[in-house]
Amino acid sequence: MALSDLKPVERNESGIATVLGVLKQQLGERFQTGRAIRDQHAHTTTYIPTQAPDGVAFVQSSEEVQQVVRACSAHQVPLVAFGTGTSLEGHVNAPAGGISIDMMGMDKVLAVNPEDLDCTIEPGVTREALNTHLRDTGLFFPIDPGANASLGGMAATRASGTNAVRYGTMRENVLSLSAVMADGRLIRTARRAKKTSAGYDLTRLLVGSEGTLGIITGLTLKLYGIPQAISGGVCPFPSVEAACNAVIATIQMGIPVARIELVNALQMRAMKNYSKLDYPETPCLFVEFHGTEAGVREQAESFGEIAAEFAGGPFQWTSVAEERTKLWKARHDAYWASLTLRPGAKGLSTDVCVPISRLAECIAETEADIADMGLIAPIVGHVGDGNFHTLVLIDTDSKDEIARAEEFVARLNLRAIGMDGTCTGEHGIGQGKIAFLDSELGDSVDFMRTIKKALDPLNILNPGKILPSRALS
Amino acid sequence: MALSDLKPVERNESGIATVLGVLKQQLGERFQTGRAIRDQHAHTTTYIPTQAPDGVAFVQSSEEVQQVVRACSAHQVPLVAFGTGTSLEGHVNAPAGGISIDMMGMDKVLAVNPEDLDCTIEPGVTREALNTHLRDTGLFFPIDPGANASLGGMAATRASGTNAVRYGTMRENVLSLSAVMADGRLIRTARRAKKTSAGYDLTRLLVGSEGTLGIITGLTLKLYGIPQAISGGVCPFPSVEAACNAVIATIQMGIPVARIELVNALQMRAMKNYSKLDYPETPCLFVEFHGTEAGVREQAESFGEIAAEFAGGPFQWTSVAEERTKLWKARHDAYWASLTLRPGAKGLSTDVCVPISRLAECIAETEADIADMGLIAPIVGHVGDGNFHTLVLIDTDSKDEIARAEEFVARLNLRAIGMDGTCTGEHGIGQGKIAFLDSELGDSVDFMRTIKKALDPLNILNPGKILPSRALS
Repeated sequence: MALSDLKPVERNESGIATVLGVLKQQLGERFQTGRAIRDQHAHTTTYIPTQAPDGVAFVQSSEEVQQVVRACSAHQVPLVAFGTGTSLEGHVNAPAGGISIDMMGMDKVLAVNPEDLDCTIEPGVTREALNTHLRDTGLFFPIDPGANASLGGMAATRASGTNAVRYGTMRENVLSLSAVMADGRLIRTARRAKKTSAGYDLTRLLVGSEGTLGIITGLTLKLYGIPQAISGGVCPFPSVEAACNAVIATIQMGIPVARIELVNALQMRAMKNYSKLDYPETPCLFVEFHGTEAGVREQAESFGEIAAEFAGGPFQWTSVAEERTKLWKARHDAYWASLTLRPGAKGLSTDVCVPISRLAECIAETEADIADMGLIAPIVGHVGDGNFHTLVLIDTDSKDEIARAEEFVARLNLRAIGMDGTCTGEHGIGQGKIAFLDSELGDSVDFMRTIKKALDPLNILNPGKILPSRALS
Repeated sequence: MALSDLKPVERNESGIATVLGVLKQQLGERFQTGRAIRDQHAHTTTYIPTQAPDGVAFVQSSEEVQQVVRACSAHQVPLVAFGTGTSLEGHVNAPAGGISIDMMGMDKVLAVNPEDLDCTIEPGVTREALNTHLRDTGLFFPIDPGANASLGGMAATRASGTNAVRYGTMRENVLSLSAVMADGRLIRTARRAKKTSAGYDLTRLLVGSEGTLGIITGLTLKLYGIPQAISGGVCPFPSVEAACNAVIATIQMGIPVARIELVNALQMRAMKNYSKLDYPETPCLFVEFHGTEAGVREQAESFGEIAAEFAGGPFQWTSVAEERTKLWKARHDAYWASLTLRPGAKGLSTDVCVPISRLAECIAETEADIADMGLIAPIVGHVGDGNFHTLVLIDTDSKDEIARAEEFVARLNLRAIGMDGTCTGEHGIGQGKIAFLDSELGDSVDFMRTIKKALDPLNILNPGKILPSRALS
């Protein structure tokens, strides 16, 4: 795989020219074609080269989304949905040009139903904005990818984060969604009931479809009561293996841990310096428990005992909000801390997820590979789910280094797949992981392609993503 | 809607004749065409008339499933997957004849991975057989529809049961599945990682597809540690509304209740007599808590306080296994208890699910409707999810009574849909609820049809189910 060698799908110059005119007329100042805005709407947080759209439509309603989709459909022009642009696999690139549809103007919280523990929002609401909105209700939405992403984008990439071990991912937390399909029709995939057996699960089909099957224009999300008590802390371990075994035992014991995050020794060094943490430079688990006062104490004590069995500890935990906040801020700043390990470098994030029984082995082999290949790549992981990220710090001016990084990533992805895992736990396929989908899912990919062709026969919705390019060329 | 007036899809006599010969040759004694066996494979637990297949294939491997699918595909003959035959909406009927494929010979537990809290099984394993197999591992599989159904069938109908409020439904508990698709290819929809963002969620697309998109030949399921402690009991309330409000408060407080089941006054009368329970004939909540010794005590006490706030109680709870078992046996026997209210009658089960804020209102209106229409129909409900069942007891020889029952069911389904709920929380659409799918999901149904056409262009997989008949005729 060569990330820097993506084959563009064919540009439809005359169609694009027509659509530019149509949208300018329809949206006026809310349709932009300036270079800076176009580049910004294809920027990526990795080093995947930017492929700018030809214009950006700033929509404010489902009806406007329908207008844009119909114009693109009529003239066979690609359409790429855009939220905060924080996806990691080139999802918002426009390899054949076309229109970027910026959803951030659709940022209203439409309804909060405290009795039902749900809310209905527009897709441009960010996770932090939603939680700010909910502040007085005693409720919160737990899914927390590193970035303050839009919830529409989080649904589109099936995102998760540190709380997934307890609260699930976007897959489990979208009750229903609205989407404009490739023919311009607006559908709602389910009603607001907490469970349903009514027909095919279009909600789950669209969650994780990365804008290739429909444009999400609304979401009904599950909410949770803010726990009465929260405790948490950091526990050092002599090795990654010991930490992983403690995680397995914790999950198996049924301790309802809310977060359990691994930080390897190199990452701890970065975080110590960046966030002024006073912990040893050994693998550590950051853990958090949600429940009643008595419950979180019991959970923390049980976890401490398990950690000790695996030579971990001392487990320092606290229920004091300020201290916990400092820890989790450090964890969420891990990306920035990592970059200080090699100033000027860019980070390439990996995202494998394996059965937890294979996690220690997978991380150990990966650490050995990092050393063998002479890379700098700290590791953090949502280890309760078997998911971990390496951030490969590369000099993007060095072709050799990019090649080595790509080889490392390929080896890691295939290692995870070989352990019955996935190349992506939460970031999605986008452009960057297309080359691994066949290895991971075999003939299933053909049926994905069949669905894509059926629902988007003109291939206008985010073409060149997810499916290997032989798919729809 | 007339349940007794289902339009058969066209029979393909010559294709059927050919396939009967092919399968006899391939499967020998494991292919049967005797009347009794054919009827048994289309029997339903409701009064929907039996529509027998032309032959029954007793398969023992994925390869044999592929053979049967390929034969049916080559000659355009319908194929209906069969598990325990306990579905409630005519799912196993063969309106255009064809082949029933009996999956119960594929009943092996292939792997149990205690560290990963998962197992991989063949689809003919029943939920009780799986839990018996798991007995020595300290693990269990929680999903418990009333019947001892096959897990393949449970996945195909997106089943749930009393534990769903805590552990989710089949939607949340199938990690991955294998399926033979309409063209005979065998796919595996995902690997064994606990979460993934790799492409379209074919797992969730097949879960709940009722055998219309593929034949499930294997499942990887999530498992859970058997809780250290379980407590539970029964709490009477002065009204359904009071009970529902207590449920809402319990869920909102974040009490991790494992089961919370409503039984209305009429159902309590039936259960008192049938199961010799000593409780008043008023609406009751059956509740259960899973956790540590201290945790379940705390949860039970908190629930008791909430119940008292809503004039409920006394809440009698216990951690003694025998007493709990008696209670839950009574709850699981609710169906049989109900039948004693009208000896000789058959039961027609409804399955609406509404946002919990509308539950009290929905049940109250339904009880009033039952009284107005002169029906006998006790109510039980998985109220933590907003899901409840009425069992309408009807004399199936009375056309008038059937018509009234159908009218009642239609009114109930539309009432639930009007409250932003679903006509089916866990039973599926099958034949019985086809008429309500458009009302519930509008244009989404068209996209389901598009997917069905793309994945099963010959419409051989369980035709005449889920999708309104204009769909594929």
